[in-house]
Amino acid sequence: MFDLITLKLNADPLILNALAEDITSEDVSTNSVVPNETLGEVDLISKADGIICGLPIFQRVFYLLDNKTQFHFFVKDGDSISHGQTLGRITGDMRVLLSGERTALNYLQRMSGIATYTNAFVRELQDSAITLLDSRKTTPNNRIFEKYAVKIGGGQNHRYNLSDGVLLKDNHIGAAGSVTKAVHSARAYAPRVRKIEVEVENLQMVKEAIEAKADIIMLDNMSYEQLQEAVALIHKKAEIEISGNITKDNIHRLTKLDVQYVSSGALTHSANILDLSLKNLHPISTVKK
Amino acid sequence: MFDLITLKLNADPLILNALAEDITSEDVSTNSVVPNETLGEVDLISKADGIICGLPIFQRVFYLLDNKTQFHFFVKDGDSISHGQTLGRITGDMRVLLSGERTALNYLQRMSGIATYTNAFVRELQDSAITLLDSRKTTPNNRIFEKYAVKIGGGQNHRYNLSDGVLLKDNHIGAAGSVTKAVHSARAYAPRVRKIEVEVENLQMVKEAIEAKADIIMLDNMSYEQLQEAVALIHKKAEIEISGNITKDNIHRLTKLDVQYVSSGALTHSANILDLSLKNLHPISTVKK
Amino acid sequence: MFDLITLKLNADPLILNALAEDITSEDVSTNSVVPNETLGEVDLISKADGIICGLPIFQRVFYLLDNKTQFHFFVKDGDSISHGQTLGRITGDMRVLLSGERTALNYLQRMSGIATYTNAFVRELQDSAITLLDSRKTTPNNRIFEKYAVKIGGGQNHRYNLSDGVLLKDNHIGAAGSVTKAVHSARAYAPRVRKIEVEVENLQMVKEAIEAKADIIMLDNMSYEQLQEAVALIHKKAEIEISGNITKDNIHRLTKLDVQYVSSGALTHSANILDLSLKNLHPISTVKK
Amino acid sequence: MFDLITLKLNADPLILNALAEDITSEDVSTNSVVPNETLGEVDLISKADGIICGLPIFQRVFYLLDNKTQFHFFVKDGDSISHGQTLGRITGDMRVLLSGERTALNYLQRMSGIATYTNAFVRELQDSAITLLDSRKTTPNNRIFEKYAVKIGGGQNHRYNLSDGVLLKDNHIGAAGSVTKAVHSARAYAPRVRKIEVEVENLQMVKEAIEAKADIIMLDNMSYEQLQEAVALIHKKAEIEISGNITKDNIHRLTKLDVQYVSSGALTHSANILDLSLKNLHPISTVKK
Amino acid sequence: MFDLITLKLNADPLILNALAEDITSEDVSTNSVVPNETLGEVDLISKADGIICGLPIFQRVFYLLDNKTQFHFFVKDGDSISHGQTLGRITGDMRVLLSGERTALNYLQRMSGIATYTNAFVRELQDSAITLLDSRKTTPNNRIFEKYAVKIGGGQNHRYNLSDGVLLKDNHIGAAGSVTKAVHSARAYAPRVRKIEVEVENLQMVKEAIEAKADIIMLDNMSYEQLQEAVALIHKKAEIEISGNITKDNIHRLTKLDVQYVSSGALTHSANILDLSLKNLHPISTVKK
Amino acid sequence: MFDLITLKLNADPLILNALAEDITSEDVSTNSVVPNETLGEVDLISKADGIICGLPIFQRVFYLLDNKTQFHFFVKDGDSISHGQTLGRITGDMRVLLSGERTALNYLQRMSGIATYTNAFVRELQDSAITLLDSRKTTPNNRIFEKYAVKIGGGQNHRYNLSDGVLLKDNHIGAAGSVTKAVHSARAYAPRVRKIEVEVENLQMVKEAIEAKADIIMLDNMSYEQLQEAVALIHKKAEIEISGNITKDNIHRLTKLDVQYVSSGALTHSANILDLSLKNLHPISTVKK
Repeated sequence: MFDLITLKLNADPLILNALAEDITSEDVSTNSVVPNETLGEVDLISKADGIICGLPIFQRVFYLLDNKTQFHFFVKDGDSISHGQTLGRITGDMRVLLSGERTALNYLQRMSGIATYTNAFVRELQDSAITLLDSRKTTPNNRIFEKYAVKIGGGQNHRYNLSDGVLLKDNHIGAAGSVTKAVHSARAYAPRVRKIEVEVENLQMVKEAIEAKADIIMLDNMSYEQLQEAVALIHKKAEIEISGNITKDNIHRLTKLDVQYVSSGALTHSANILDLSLKNLHPISTVKK
Repeated sequence: MFDLITLKLNADPLILNALAEDITSEDVSTNSVVPNETLGEVDLISKADGIICGLPIFQRVFYLLDNKTQFHFFVKDGDSISHGQTLGRITGDMRVLLSGERTALNYLQRMSGIATYTNAFVRELQDSAITLLDSRKTTPNNRIFEKYAVKIGGGQNHRYNLSDGVLLKDNHIGAAGSVTKAVHSARAYAPRVRKIEVEVENLQMVKEAIEAKADIIMLDNMSYEQLQEAVALIHKKAEIEISGNITKDNIHRLTKLDVQYVSSGALTHSANILDLSLKNLHPISTVKK
Repeated sequence: MFDLITLKLNADPLILNALAEDITSEDVSTNSVVPNETLGEVDLISKADGIICGLPIFQRVFYLLDNKTQFHFFVKDGDSISHGQTLGRITGDMRVLLSGERTALNYLQRMSGIATYTNAFVRELQDSAITLLDSRKTTPNNRIFEKYAVKIGGGQNHRYNLSDGVLLKDNHIGAAGSVTKAVHSARAYAPRVRKIEVEVENLQMVKEAIEAKADIIMLDNMSYEQLQEAVALIHKKAEIEISGNITKDNIHRLTKLDVQYVSSGALTHSANILDLSLKNLHPISTVKK
Repeated sequence: MFDLITLKLNADPLILNALAEDITSEDVSTNSVVPNETLGEVDLISKADGIICGLPIFQRVFYLLDNKTQFHFFVKDGDSISHGQTLGRITGDMRVLLSGERTALNYLQRMSGIATYTNAFVRELQDSAITLLDSRKTTPNNRIFEKYAVKIGGGQNHRYNLSDGVLLKDNHIGAAGSVTKAVHSARAYAPRVRKIEVEVENLQMVKEAIEAKADIIMLDNMSYEQLQEAVALIHKKAEIEISGNITKDNIHRLTKLDVQYVSSGALTHSANILDLSLKNLHPISTVKK
Repeated sequence: MFDLITLKLNADPLILNALAEDITSEDVSTNSVVPNETLGEVDLISKADGIICGLPIFQRVFYLLDNKTQFHFFVKDGDSISHGQTLGRITGDMRVLLSGERTALNYLQRMSGIATYTNAFVRELQDSAITLLDSRKTTPNNRIFEKYAVKIGGGQNHRYNLSDGVLLKDNHIGAAGSVTKAVHSARAYAPRVRKIEVEVENLQMVKEAIEAKADIIMLDNMSYEQLQEAVALIHKKAEIEISGNITKDNIHRLTKLDVQYVSSGALTHSANILDLSLKNLHPISTVKK
Repeated sequence: MFDLITLKLNADPLILNALAEDITSEDVSTNSVVPNETLGEVDLISKADGIICGLPIFQRVFYLLDNKTQFHFFVKDGDSISHGQTLGRITGDMRVLLSGERTALNYLQRMSGIATYTNAFVRELQDSAITLLDSRKTTPNNRIFEKYAVKIGGGQNHRYNLSDGVLLKDNHIGAAGSVTKAVHSARAYAPRVRKIEVEVENLQMVKEAIEAKADIIMLDNMSYEQLQEAVALIHKKAEIEISGNITKDNIHRLTKLDVQYVSSGALTHSANILDLSLKNLHPISTVKK
C-alpha cells in the first residue's frame, strides 16, 4: 500500500501537516544546543513485544525534513519484535533526528500497536477461513495509516470510506422504508463496480436481504443462536459478515460458523500503542556508505 | 480553548480534511436512499460511563456540512455521563446527519476516552497540590483535540509543541556536552518568555540543573528513593516535574512528594475510546424553534 | 450527487480554484465600470438544443462570490432545452454577475454538453436493458462534474478512480503473468467490498476469466462475432461489459447482446459544449422577495 | 511557457491535484499485481493524425510520482504525428507507469486535440497577416494547459484572465452607460500597462470606440459587410479583432480584411481529443543509460 | 479594488494565514481572562496625522473570526486623519476583539503608512499631468494590499506581476542582445493585450526603443539633462516613464518634463507605518441595532 | 533559526506563495528573450552600508525554482557590508535568475533593513546588560523572517505569537477586573511552561503585579522617574521589561536602569529596506565545480 505513489500523494500532506503541528516556527530546544549541521546516529529500540508496523512512514518523516537522512532497518513491517531489540539505525543531521523524533515515533507506535492488536484477533481465527475486517472507526486524518496497520497485522480492509463502498445500515434502512427498498435504491444509484452490503438485525431482515439480492449481508449484534439460523438461511446466496461486540475473548467461537468475514472497530479505536524509543544519539564523523 | 477563533483557524482545516478523508466524491449509501433534503432528528446516546468531551467538535462536523443543523445537548464537556444516557438531539437534513455521523463520533469517542482516562489519574492525585500534565505523545494531526481533552479531564497542558517550550532531554544534553551547557545554550538562544526545563536521570544531573538555574527540573524514570533525594536537593530552587512509567496504579504514592507536576504520555496515547452512538434517526416535519 | 455535502467538501475547492485562475488580483474591467455594489439582473439563455446540466455548479460559482445572489431557474438538471429558451434569471451585485459569468458558463456549457452527448448514446440503447457507463477519461480536475453529467444524461458511472474499483487491464495481466494470476492477486489484495473486473481481448482470456471467477468481464475491442461467442461462454457466470470504439453510430447493434454494460470514454472526452449565454444584464432597484 | 518555473509554481499544484483525484488512497489494481518496485518500459503510441502537444506535462505527471522515471521522446511539442507512430518510450517502476498512465494521457490527449484543432484554423489564415487568438472559454482549472496548446497549434493568447487584461463587453458598456464612458472609466482605473479593448456590435459603437481612443476594437458577431465598413472606419486608429461564430469553414473569407486578430472560443471548448495510448508495457532488467 | 470578490478570492487566504501565524493553537492570554463569549466595544484611534487606508481589510480580519462583529467607521479609505481622532468603533465578542487586534492593526498601520507616503509624493506632482506609479518592490505576500494603498494615496499601479505586464530591463536586453531584439521577441511572444515597455539607460537605447516601436519607454537613472534630451527624442512616439532614485525632495523638478509616468519603489518599500491603536475596550450589555 | 527544517516546514510555503504572487502564469518578459535553458551568472551587490540578513531565504527563492542553482556568498548573515561591495555570485539558468530576482531581493532587502535598524538600537545598549526585544508588530505573513532579522541584528525575540506566550495588556486587565485577577486567571489557565507577563502603567499596578507573582512586569509608557520608582519596587521579585515610545535617540538613558529587557515595535514596523541589487547578468558556458 505504501508504495512511493501513495506516500507522495496521500501520506506526505498528512505527515507534513503533523510536522508543522509540532514545529510552528522552529525547534527551540534543538537549535539551542545544535546550532549547526552535525552528523549523528541514533538507534530505534523496542520496549515491548509485538508486531512492528509503519517503518516507511517513520522513515518518511525524517526524509521529508532532509532527504540525505539514511536508514538501516534490521526488521521490516510485519515482523515480530521483542522488548529490548534494536530495530534500526538512523544517520543524519542531529537536528533532523531530534526534531523529527516525536512525530516519527507517534506514527510508528500507533501503527505498531494496531498491527499487534489486530494480529491477536487474527490468531484466534487462524483455524478457520474467516477474514478479519476493519471499519471506518479510525482516528481522523489517520485512516490511511491505520488501515495499512490492520493489513500488516493480518486483517483485511473493509471499504475505505463513504465514497468507495455501499453499506446500508439501520438508519439508511429506516430512511428507505425497508431492507428491500434500500437495496434496490442502492443498486439503481451506486456505480456498477460496487458490491451492495446491508446490515441486518433479525431473521426477518435477513430474509428480505436475500430476496433483494444483497451481495453481502452483515449480521449485526446477533446472539450465537441467531447467527446460526441466519447463516443457514443465507447459505451461499450472499457473502456473510459478522459484526458487533467482537472481542479477543469471544471471537474464537465464530470460527465454527460458515461465514466469510468478521469485522471489528476495536482494531483501530482501542489498540494501545507499542512502546518504541530512539536511544543513544551520538555524533559521528562520516556516514558509512 | 475551543472558542470560535480556535475552531475557525485551527480546528476547521483538520475537520474538513477528516470529512474529505471519508467522502472523496459523495456518500453513495446515503444518497441512494435519501435523494433529496429531508428533515430528520437523531439522538446521541452513551453506551458507557465516563466524562463527555468534544461536543463543540462533534457539533462543528455537522455545522461545517450544513450550518442550518440544530443541536440540543443535555450535557456539556466535562460532565460525567453513564451508560444508556441520552446526551443530545441533532436536527437537520438526514443526509447531513448520516454523512457526518462517523467523523463526528470518531472525534467525540476519542476525546471523551482521553478525558475519562485523564480523570482517573487526576482522582488519584486529588488529595495533593500536584498538577497532572500531558506530553507531545499525541496522535498526529489531533494534538489540539487531545490536549483539550486532557484539560477537560482535569489535567493541564505541558508545552504545545517544539516551538513554544524548551525541554532539554537526554539527547539534547548529550549533544550539548552537559546539563550546564545545555541550559546555558537554551537561555542564550530561546525567546525570553520561555521557562527552561531540563530532564535529568540521576542526582548528579539534578545538582547541575540547580546550579544552572533551570526553571523546571524533570525527574525522569527515577526510583521512589531517588525522587525523594532529588526533591530534597531542589527544594524551591526550581519547579519539579516527575515523568516516566506513571500508571493509574502507581501514581498515588507520588502525592507525598513536594513536587508541582507529574506528566504522562499515556493520557493521550493509551486511552481507550468511550463508546457513543447516534440512534433513532427519523424524519420529522419541521424544526421546533 | 451534488447534495450540499459534496458541494462543500469536493466541489467548492475546485470552483474556488477556477475562480482564482480567472481573477488573480481583481476583475479590472468590471471594477472600472461598476465601482460600487449595484443590484442587477441577468438572464441565462440557451443558444442550442440539448440537455441542461450543472445548474447547482453554475449557482455555486456566484454563491461563493456572494451568498446574497438569488436564482430563479425555469428548468432543472436533466431537462431538455431548446435554442432561444430563457433558462433562468440571476439577481445580485452586478460586479458578481460580471466577474463570475465566464467561470459559471464554462462549467455549465461543458456539463450540459456531456449530458447532451451521453443522452444521444442512451437513446440508442433504450430498447435494451444495457446500462451505459463512463470511464476515467475525464478532464483533469473535472471528474466530479463530468461523471455527474453522464448520470444526468442517462448513463451510469463506472468506478470513480483507481482507489475505489478494481479493473485489471492488458498491462496488469502482463505484469501478473496471466488473467488467472491477476484475478487471484486482486482478490487476495483488494478490500472485500470491491468487485473484481478484468479486461479480456480474446476467447481464451474469457475462459480464464470465468474460471478465475471474475465478477465482471470487460470485452475490449472485439468484433461482433467474437462478442457473440464470448457472451455465450460467460452466460450468467459474470457480469459483462463491452468497451472499445463505441460510437453513436455503431452502438445500437449491441442491444441484441445479453450484456449488462457498454462503456465509452467518448462521453467525457469528446462531447462538444452546449452553447449558453448570460444576456440582458441591467440594473434593478430592489430584489423581489 | 512550460519552463521549469511555470511547471513548479503553476502546473505542479494542478497536476498533483489531478493525480489525487484519481488516487485517493492507492491504486488497488496495480498494487495487487505489482507488489514491489519492478523496472518496466512502455511505448507512447499515436492512434490518430495531428499535432502533438503537452509532452512536458505528460512527463511531469510521472516525474512527480517518481523523479527517477526516464523519458525518450522521438517527437517534440508542435510536431505533426500520424496514426501508428511511436512517439516515445518511458522507463521506470511499473507501478508508476501504470498508476500515472491515465492522468498523463488525459492531459496529453486534450492538449494535442486543441493544438491540432487550432492548427486547422491557423492554416486557413496562413496567406494573411492575421493572428488567431484564443479566449477565456477554457475548461476550469486547465487554462494554463489549454492556452499553451493554442500557441503550440500556431495561435496566440488573448488575455490570460480578468486581472491581466481589459476587455469591455456589452454588459460592461451597459453598466457604464456608453462605449465612451466605459473606455474612459477603464483608462482612469486600470494599471497603466494595459491596453484597453472594447467590444462593439454596430458602426455607431465603432465610431464611439475610435473617438474614445480604445487600443483594440473587437467587432463582435458582425456580418461581412458590417466588418468591411467597420475596418474602413477604424483604419489604423486602433487594432482590430474579429470575434463571434468563427468556424473552420467560414474563417478563410476574413483573410481579405485588414485586421490584426481573429479570436475563437471554439479552439479550447470544442476541440476533440487526439487519440494516444501507452502500449507494450513490459518488465526490463536495467535502465539503459 | 477590494470588492467582495477580491476579498474572498485573493485577500481572505492571506488574512487567514496571517491570523494563523499569530494563533497556532489559541490566544492563551485572552482565553485566560475572557473564558466565555462577552460582548464588548473598542475604539479605533489615530496616534498620528496621515491618510487612512485598509479599513476593509481591518474589518475583514475580525469578520473572518466572527461574522457577527459590527463596525461603525467615522472615516473611509483615503480620508485625511489627525492625531487623536476616533476613527471607528468595533462591537463584538471581546475575545474576537482582543485576538484579532494585532493582525488587524498590522495591516491597517502598514497600508495607511503607504497611502500617506504616496500622497506626499503625489502632492509634489499635482501641478502636472504626470501619474505616479508603484513597482513590484512590495513586501512578499502583501502586494495586493500595498498596491491598493498606493491607489488610495493617489498613485496608480504599474503591472501587478511578471505575468501581466512586459517590462524589458537591462538584464533582459543583455540576454536578448539588444533593445531591438528584446522588443521584437516580446512582441512575438507576449499575449496581444500587453503593452511592451522597455527600460533604457542612454540616448542610444532610447533611439533603438523608438525604432522598435516600444509602447512605453522607461528612462532609468538618467540625469535631468539626459531626461530632457530623451523626452525630446521620443516626442509622442511612445509613452514615457521616469524611474530611479526618485525622492520626495527631488520629484518636483520632473513636473516640467512632458512625460506620462514617474515610478518609485520607495512608495511600498520605504514607507513608515502610521500609528493607530485600539483603545477603551469595555464590556457592553447589548449591541445597538 | 533557518535550519533546513524551519525552511521546509515554515518558510517554503510562504516563499512559494510569494513567487506565485509574482508569477501567476509565466514570466512573459523573461520567456520572450530567453526561450530555452541558458546558463548565466549574476552578482549580488550592496548599494548601501548595513548588516546583511536573509541570505538563506534569498538562496531558497532560487533553489525552489531550480535546485541546480549554485551560490557563492562572500559574506554571511550578520556581517557588516558597505556600499558597492560584491556580496555573492549566483549561477544557474538565466530564466531562474531573472524570474526569481525580485522576490529574492524583496526578502533580502527587508530583512537586512531590519537587522541594520535593530543593530543601531543594540549599539545604544551595549554598555548595559539589557536585552533588546521585538514585538508582534510584524508584517503579516512575514513574522518568521522579521523575527530572525531582529536576532541577526543583535536583538532577541519576545514571544512568537498569541499561542506561545502570555502577556496581559491593559485590555486584558480591564476584562479580568484587576491585575491580580488577570495574573491569577492566566496562571490557572496557561500551559505550565509559560512565564506570566503583565503590562502595567502606574505604580499601583506595579505593586499588584509583584503581589500576584507575575514572572515578568512590563512597564509601559512610563516617564523616566516612574521607571526608577517601579524598578526599585520590583527589585528582583520579577523580570522587568520597558516598552513604549522607544527610539534610537532616547533608548540610551535606559541603560542606567536595572532592568532585563527593552522592547520596541519599531524594529520591525519602521525599518527602511537596505538597498541591494543583482547586477551584471551574463551567460556563461559551464558551471565551475
